[in-house]
Amino acid sequence: MNELENLQITIVGLGLMGGSLAGALRGQCKNVIGVARRSETIETALEQKLIHAGTTDLAAGVRQASIVILATPVRAILSLLPEIGALSPEGCLLMDLGSSKAQIVAEMARLPDHIQPLGGHPMCGKEVSGIAAADTALYQGCTFILTPLPRTSEAALALGQALAKAIGAHPLVLEPNRHDYLVGTISHLPYLLACALVSTADATTSADPAVWKIVAGGFRDTSRLAGGDVTMMMDILLSNREEVLKALKAYQAQLLTLSRLVEDGDEKEMGERLSTIRAKRLEMFP
Amino acid sequence: MNELENLQITIVGLGLMGGSLAGALRGQCKNVIGVARRSETIETALEQKLIHAGTTDLAAGVRQASIVILATPVRAILSLLPEIGALSPEGCLLMDLGSSKAQIVAEMARLPDHIQPLGGHPMCGKEVSGIAAADTALYQGCTFILTPLPRTSEAALALGQALAKAIGAHPLVLEPNRHDYLVGTISHLPYLLACALVSTADATTSADPAVWKIVAGGFRDTSRLAGGDVTMMMDILLSNREEVLKALKAYQAQLLTLSRLVEDGDEKEMGERLSTIRAKRLEMFP
Repeated sequence: MNELENLQITIVGLGLMGGSLAGALRGQCKNVIGVARRSETIETALEQKLIHAGTTDLAAGVRQASIVILATPVRAILSLLPEIGALSPEGCLLMDLGSSKAQIVAEMARLPDHIQPLGGHPMCGKEVSGIAAADTALYQGCTFILTPLPRTSEAALALGQALAKAIGAHPLVLEPNRHDYLVGTISHLPYLLACALVSTADATTSADPAVWKIVAGGFRDTSRLAGGDVTMMMDILLSNREEVLKALKAYQAQLLTLSRLVEDGDEKEMGERLSTIRAKRLEMFP
Repeated sequence: MNELENLQITIVGLGLMGGSLAGALRGQCKNVIGVARRSETIETALEQKLIHAGTTDLAAGVRQASIVILATPVRAILSLLPEIGALSPEGCLLMDLGSSKAQIVAEMARLPDHIQPLGGHPMCGKEVSGIAAADTALYQGCTFILTPLPRTSEAALALGQALAKAIGAHPLVLEPNRHDYLVGTISHLPYLLACALVSTADATTSADPAVWKIVAGGFRDTSRLAGGDVTMMMDILLSNREEVLKALKAYQAQLLTLSRLVEDGDEKEMGERLSTIRAKRLEMFP
């Protein structure tokens, strides 16, 4: 039995996340409708068979939806929410895919009573963006965080969980502030580290043409996130600013400790510290 | 024509790098002899058909070698060099695979005149170590840096280049200080960043059991290097300390700039900075 099979699901925003979600949901529900700002995006989504139909008209797109999913950058979600509340039908489940949750959930609390709001954040992505990069397997095996509001009904939460499972993801219910604290360190912080690494190399060694011949996998992996979509990342950093700044402070302190160990050259202390870190890394990713 | 086919090559140290090198050279030369401290390592290398013969006796292993390659951590290379100079035969090419070069090349300058010394650093690796992880394809396509000394003959350098090509690598001649400056930023710095990220997560979010369900590819990639072999990495950091500290300082300044941008929340400036960094990353890895 599939809870989604008789439903129309409307996805607002057909970038990497929205386009991939649409493709993954197609065949699992009655209709997947895509809403995008540009008609070219809808054409691409139709050509790639990611959606059943599409429109640039938000009102038309959500009018008959049982589930509406906002798949735009965080600040676009925040500005869409008041508008979409009035447009969505009675009992509609309104979800989002934004990477920070406290601000979005606070805005969702203001939605009209006839809407069932549910924050969402699937822990997957790629450093490429746009509908052209859509991948229907993107959500397979990932954790899909759900942040219900006090007003969210059990049935609405269960439907959100069914949706996550239908695309191969593992739903995980978390409180919004706890979500933002955790992702501040394990997701937003690594982006800034990668950016700082790229700008350090750019300001120093990049002037030497030999550097691109010798750059190895370590630099590539450690800097990968710096290639992420800037609008999306900036929205994340600004909407989760406090947690990001706390994580940055903690990180700067750790880096200073390591830097002092290198400076002092105390082999015993350094060996112990690096061994502990290595053991933790192996524990994190066995 | 293969310049190596009539030669005996002795590899001292049969870990990931030495074991992989041995396996890649087998079949390209007359004999590959492995020297290791433990006889179990030699047995494994023989079982895996990485070497033709092996010994725990350094003198016996290098006595008839045309090429000796030191494939141990940097400080073991530094302490082996004086000893091995006296043991190696007339005209022998003595190379190493150490990840920092200035200290090693300075020690190589003290070798007896009958040795041809050549610093080496293949830009490849894995976060696993030991003979069990040996991979004969490890060097395929990687850049193999060679740092000749003023006393290194053209023939010896050409032989080192032929060896790099024989294992599928691209030889690149660099001056030792220039090597150390470049790898300080593009290889040793990323290791420390990854370590600081793991210890930050360990000191904060790791206490929350949900964190391991939501950790995504970004954290995994950015922290990957922290799983590297501690002895090897400590040797690298200590033998390239000045360059590593300079790179760390430059990095800390870049991180502070980014941290201030997040704090100020100036969207225009932040957008410009992150876009520049993204463009650089795409330029680095198109």
